[in-house]
Amino acid sequence: MRPRCRTFGLRLGVLETGPRNTIADVGEVRVGHVTLISGEGKLVPGTGPVRTGVTVIVPHRGNVLKDRPKANWDTINGCGELTSAVIMREFGLIETPIALTNTMCVGNAAIGLIEATMEANPEADAFIPTVSECDDSFLNDARGLHVKPHHVREALRAASDDIPLGVVGAGTGMTCCQFKGGVGSASRRVSAADGGYLVGALVVSNFGWREHLVIGGVSVGRELIAREKAKGAIPPGGAGSIVMILATDAPLSSRQLGRLARRSFHGLARLGSFSGNGSGDITVAFSTSNRVPYDAEDGVLTEQRLPDGRMNPLFLAAVEATEEAIVDSLFTAETVVGRDGNTSPGLPVPEVVEILRDHGRIV
Amino acid sequence: MRPRCRTFGLRLGVLETGPRNTIADVGEVRVGHVTLISGEGKLVPGTGPVRTGVTVIVPHRGNVLKDRPKANWDTINGCGELTSAVIMREFGLIETPIALTNTMCVGNAAIGLIEATMEANPEADAFIPTVSECDDSFLNDARGLHVKPHHVREALRAASDDIPLGVVGAGTGMTCCQFKGGVGSASRRVSAADGGYLVGALVVSNFGWREHLVIGGVSVGRELIAREKAKGAIPPGGAGSIVMILATDAPLSSRQLGRLARRSFHGLARLGSFSGNGSGDITVAFSTSNRVPYDAEDGVLTEQRLPDGRMNPLFLAAVEATEEAIVDSLFTAETVVGRDGNTSPGLPVPEVVEILRDHGRIV
Amino acid sequence: MRPRCRTFGLRLGVLETGPRNTIADVGEVRVGHVTLISGEGKLVPGTGPVRTGVTVIVPHRGNVLKDRPKANWDTINGCGELTSAVIMREFGLIETPIALTNTMCVGNAAIGLIEATMEANPEADAFIPTVSECDDSFLNDARGLHVKPHHVREALRAASDDIPLGVVGAGTGMTCCQFKGGVGSASRRVSAADGGYLVGALVVSNFGWREHLVIGGVSVGRELIAREKAKGAIPPGGAGSIVMILATDAPLSSRQLGRLARRSFHGLARLGSFSGNGSGDITVAFSTSNRVPYDAEDGVLTEQRLPDGRMNPLFLAAVEATEEAIVDSLFTAETVVGRDGNTSPGLPVPEVVEILRDHGRIV
Amino acid sequence: MRPRCRTFGLRLGVLETGPRNTIADVGEVRVGHVTLISGEGKLVPGTGPVRTGVTVIVPHRGNVLKDRPKANWDTINGCGELTSAVIMREFGLIETPIALTNTMCVGNAAIGLIEATMEANPEADAFIPTVSECDDSFLNDARGLHVKPHHVREALRAASDDIPLGVVGAGTGMTCCQFKGGVGSASRRVSAADGGYLVGALVVSNFGWREHLVIGGVSVGRELIAREKAKGAIPPGGAGSIVMILATDAPLSSRQLGRLARRSFHGLARLGSFSGNGSGDITVAFSTSNRVPYDAEDGVLTEQRLPDGRMNPLFLAAVEATEEAIVDSLFTAETVVGRDGNTSPGLPVPEVVEILRDHGRIV
Repeated sequence: MRPRCRTFGLRLGVLETGPRNTIADVGEVRVGHVTLISGEGKLVPGTGPVRTGVTVIVPHRGNVLKDRPKANWDTINGCGELTSAVIMREFGLIETPIALTNTMCVGNAAIGLIEATMEANPEADAFIPTVSECDDSFLNDARGLHVKPHHVREALRAASDDIPLGVVGAGTGMTCCQFKGGVGSASRRVSAADGGYLVGALVVSNFGWREHLVIGGVSVGRELIAREKAKGAIPPGGAGSIVMILATDAPLSSRQLGRLARRSFHGLARLGSFSGNGSGDITVAFSTSNRVPYDAEDGVLTEQRLPDGRMNPLFLAAVEATEEAIVDSLFTAETVVGRDGNTSPGLPVPEVVEILRDHGRIV
Repeated sequence: MRPRCRTFGLRLGVLETGPRNTIADVGEVRVGHVTLISGEGKLVPGTGPVRTGVTVIVPHRGNVLKDRPKANWDTINGCGELTSAVIMREFGLIETPIALTNTMCVGNAAIGLIEATMEANPEADAFIPTVSECDDSFLNDARGLHVKPHHVREALRAASDDIPLGVVGAGTGMTCCQFKGGVGSASRRVSAADGGYLVGALVVSNFGWREHLVIGGVSVGRELIAREKAKGAIPPGGAGSIVMILATDAPLSSRQLGRLARRSFHGLARLGSFSGNGSGDITVAFSTSNRVPYDAEDGVLTEQRLPDGRMNPLFLAAVEATEEAIVDSLFTAETVVGRDGNTSPGLPVPEVVEILRDHGRIV
Repeated sequence: MRPRCRTFGLRLGVLETGPRNTIADVGEVRVGHVTLISGEGKLVPGTGPVRTGVTVIVPHRGNVLKDRPKANWDTINGCGELTSAVIMREFGLIETPIALTNTMCVGNAAIGLIEATMEANPEADAFIPTVSECDDSFLNDARGLHVKPHHVREALRAASDDIPLGVVGAGTGMTCCQFKGGVGSASRRVSAADGGYLVGALVVSNFGWREHLVIGGVSVGRELIAREKAKGAIPPGGAGSIVMILATDAPLSSRQLGRLARRSFHGLARLGSFSGNGSGDITVAFSTSNRVPYDAEDGVLTEQRLPDGRMNPLFLAAVEATEEAIVDSLFTAETVVGRDGNTSPGLPVPEVVEILRDHGRIV
Repeated sequence: MRPRCRTFGLRLGVLETGPRNTIADVGEVRVGHVTLISGEGKLVPGTGPVRTGVTVIVPHRGNVLKDRPKANWDTINGCGELTSAVIMREFGLIETPIALTNTMCVGNAAIGLIEATMEANPEADAFIPTVSECDDSFLNDARGLHVKPHHVREALRAASDDIPLGVVGAGTGMTCCQFKGGVGSASRRVSAADGGYLVGALVVSNFGWREHLVIGGVSVGRELIAREKAKGAIPPGGAGSIVMILATDAPLSSRQLGRLARRSFHGLARLGSFSGNGSGDITVAFSTSNRVPYDAEDGVLTEQRLPDGRMNPLFLAAVEATEEAIVDSLFTAETVVGRDGNTSPGLPVPEVVEILRDHGRIV
């Protein structure tokens, strides 16, 4: 993992970060990765090279099925998969941790979540796991379906509040703006007057074109292209997606979490994205402080939520955290050579920093 | 107003009704009508004949803008208008009473609600009224736009918990299953063990074809057709819509009110409807006990809501109340002769009762 | 498979059926089942008893990924899973056949579709399969995840236009209205004047309560309860779902297929359902005659579609086909004894027929 | 109308503009304004001061009701009104020109469109007009409801392909990022290889906070604040909305127009917006080349549409046109003093240009 963008003096947005500046700042959220890297050279489907993995976001330390976080999702370009999309809208919650992986392995990841949830709940025999994905077939033997259910369980066991970024887990094989993408994360804290709530973002970035890449308001992509002068093959543009996960400790209803989720699209836009046709730009937002008990079939629930009139700071936090998470997914990911020698080059950070300095964006 | 269907021994569904068996059983809900009937004979656009009106549903006796009922809407065939549809989804509430009128007069009804709300709120200068509609142009000089803003204000002043049904208010010019339709209402109370909550429905019925009309499970429409043997012209089928309003005193979130609203479609289906292409089958559901203060920009709201696991009795209540409201809109509406002599004949209740008796549906 | 309802003279709706009166009347649609039944007695999770299976609906004989049927989906109570829900809305099509199975095996079924689609498309490395589900844990060792990817491939190979109904495939472990449910199918043809199009339905029925069961407009459920007088244990009510698949050869856009899908809810309502809280009432509708080529990245597509003004006969066909498919899922399914001796009794057809005769519904 | 941003050398995005660089570049699209400015000083509700108006977008020169443009809409924060939202989703088209006005006058504008459409269609007696709005009550006597139906008809008569921008029509009373907002418009043409299609945007800008204003990637808002040092009162932030209209001559289906509409949110994000809680960020997109005949109740329609794989250039065009339309709404709008002396100051263009030069954004 290469250094994060703040190391170089880049400040995105105006709000403060949380202590770790990752999604793990929020409540008890933890993240686990399993990274699968093996083989080199020519693609032998079913064998490799393998450049893939799985990332799990665990919303709290309890039994997620029994103590279900309120949640919602939305998309600005739905060229992707999100299992549980239908039931999350109906009930406004998730029933399992969230797993992210490659497109072809969604089914395996779902089975992995089911196995882990069954283990923790000996009576559970019907529930719906939440999995989303991006396509890593440029670098990875996607047809090999290398992420298996047991990898999800390993990722869950590995979950921690110390989150590696870049070429890890579901980010292993991703390509973003024709540079190496991967896992990024960031957080923002709203002011004490606004409640002091945290919003954390975790993304798997796999979208876009180099020429459209914007960082900190600067058209870094075009400047890099102008400087590079045909330095050999670059990855194809546009293929791909971005999955964005937002967590907050603000007490929001599922309707409000849908509102929060939509702000991630503004964060994405700050990278210059126009949500390409083949991109699955999908966001899930959940609250760590607003949970729904599994068995509530008696009585009336008493719940807390913010008035909508107090959401603006959270909206800004969601935009900024998403923006920085994507930028960090690029900063932290080193070059990966994958199947058939396909190469996804790490963002040339020194040049990017220089460009940002030239524009007064880093002082 | 002709007698309601229960007068004839018809029992629809299994739940008990509220005391009035109308939407006014719920909390402080009141309904007001202004009925416009004038002129006869040939249509003179702008003059008449006039067979139209407006109906308002007032959710409570307070200031609706300042004490906003949670609400949501859905449609199974959206060939119609519902103002405030966008904002009701975003915030899960309504800001004004609900007005129902004819298609062409939605704008006037909106202005009427705005005027009344401004009067009650001297500082209010931006809010969005809720109006829906059906097309009464078969009987009414629709192009004359006879419902004016002041009629809405009159209907609001007339609002009462004693609700006339049939050929009144927005129902004046409506035609349902090629019989005279209009305003219907009914209510259901769930058992004390289920919370004793009430669900009330009010409909303006204007949909369908005679041949598809089902009452109490019996294909009454086809039996009537078989018995009648070409008794002269009948209204054209299919044109039209049905607007359904559901009120409940159960503490439901806006997400849950969306769920409740969708059950009205099952009630509609019990009439034999297949939601024809030109039908605006639109439902708004609101809760009288779950309100959102206008100015909540501080602190955290504490709210109550039913667990979803307790909604089944409410769902059944919504289905049954909707079904009976539609049936009563037909039972109570007498024949109306409108523009150009167009005639919408009242449901031939004696024959219908006889048919229902023949099938053992009325004992 | 027991006889279908028409055998007993029951006629539902007014339209003609297709030649087979199944979804296989439409274009080249074929259906394949794999039925897994083994073991008896006490549940040993992971071992059995097994009462489950998988059903695939193959939209045409070509390469589905390369020649993608237009499609859309909707739900009236989304307590269930539909993979590809996000992308189907974005692009209005499906990329694979549709697999139906039990809730816990959705991931395995997805992998099975992926394997089969990869086999037919050696270059394909990113696509999203369509799987939906119902919960069969009352009869089946659901925690055993007995449906494996290879079962989907077997079901695809077994696909035929001769469709067994009842206790087969995904219907093996289902329970509907506290009777044995399962797979049902039916079709309707609109008149030649209306285009002569076919609409076929296939359902996996797993919803509801006995007391609410309506067949042919008659409250068969309550009459059966009155006659039976406590004949021992019956399955729990309400758990479950219904997945409905509609196929048509009418040239419809994806928007119009969404409209068609919503009519299945009216068909469901004719069974007395109020879409219980725990029911995943999900419908996918596709057109066999409106397909989208995979690689269309040049030129402009010329497409045909019906004017919306011509959809009414299709809407009625969808309602009637769905209704009869559900009724047939009950008529054709014999009693199944599953895990822990749990018993889902076949609908007592002779008594049902007698009740329908008493009400003049069967002559 | 002050000069547009291109006058100062500002280039936003990479695509070429159409000849006028407005929405009127697309097909026969015309725009008409009626601007109402009268009175000064203290607010006398019902009298003034008046700072408001109405803007109509006419999609083509024919009879819009009879030759209906395909259309769709979406919102990223639905704190606003869009009449016809329900039916536009159901049928994928608009039936009238689009009118934009202030929040309180939506009903009057709807009546105006109805009157004009009736005049052109002597038989039409049921259709649904498309109106959207922003709140101009900071400058305008909003409670006076000064926009009347006849103003819409005047705006329709005034419609032209020569479009005044800034403080005109619906933009008259708007405030954007605490500067004077108003009407902006721009267009983009995709390359001949991509089909040469045009995308035009027209916005009424009324959103945001000065501190978040970004132009051309530069945080112009914060730099202006740093330079200004408390120059007296500024308008309140955040109140308001933005309505965005996109027109294209590309043959798109309504599903695809929904996709196009969502790209406007990326354009909005480029201004630094995070879609504040009280903002109605609503977009309608229509195609001038894909129309639906009113009376099509026979036969099958043959339609053309772009493959989705060709939409990327249109997506980028929509983002860029929206971005520039908003920027131009700020550049072109001069200071307006309204009710109670409330002042919405014109963007200080010289300082903005200087800031953009300092950042190398204008050369």
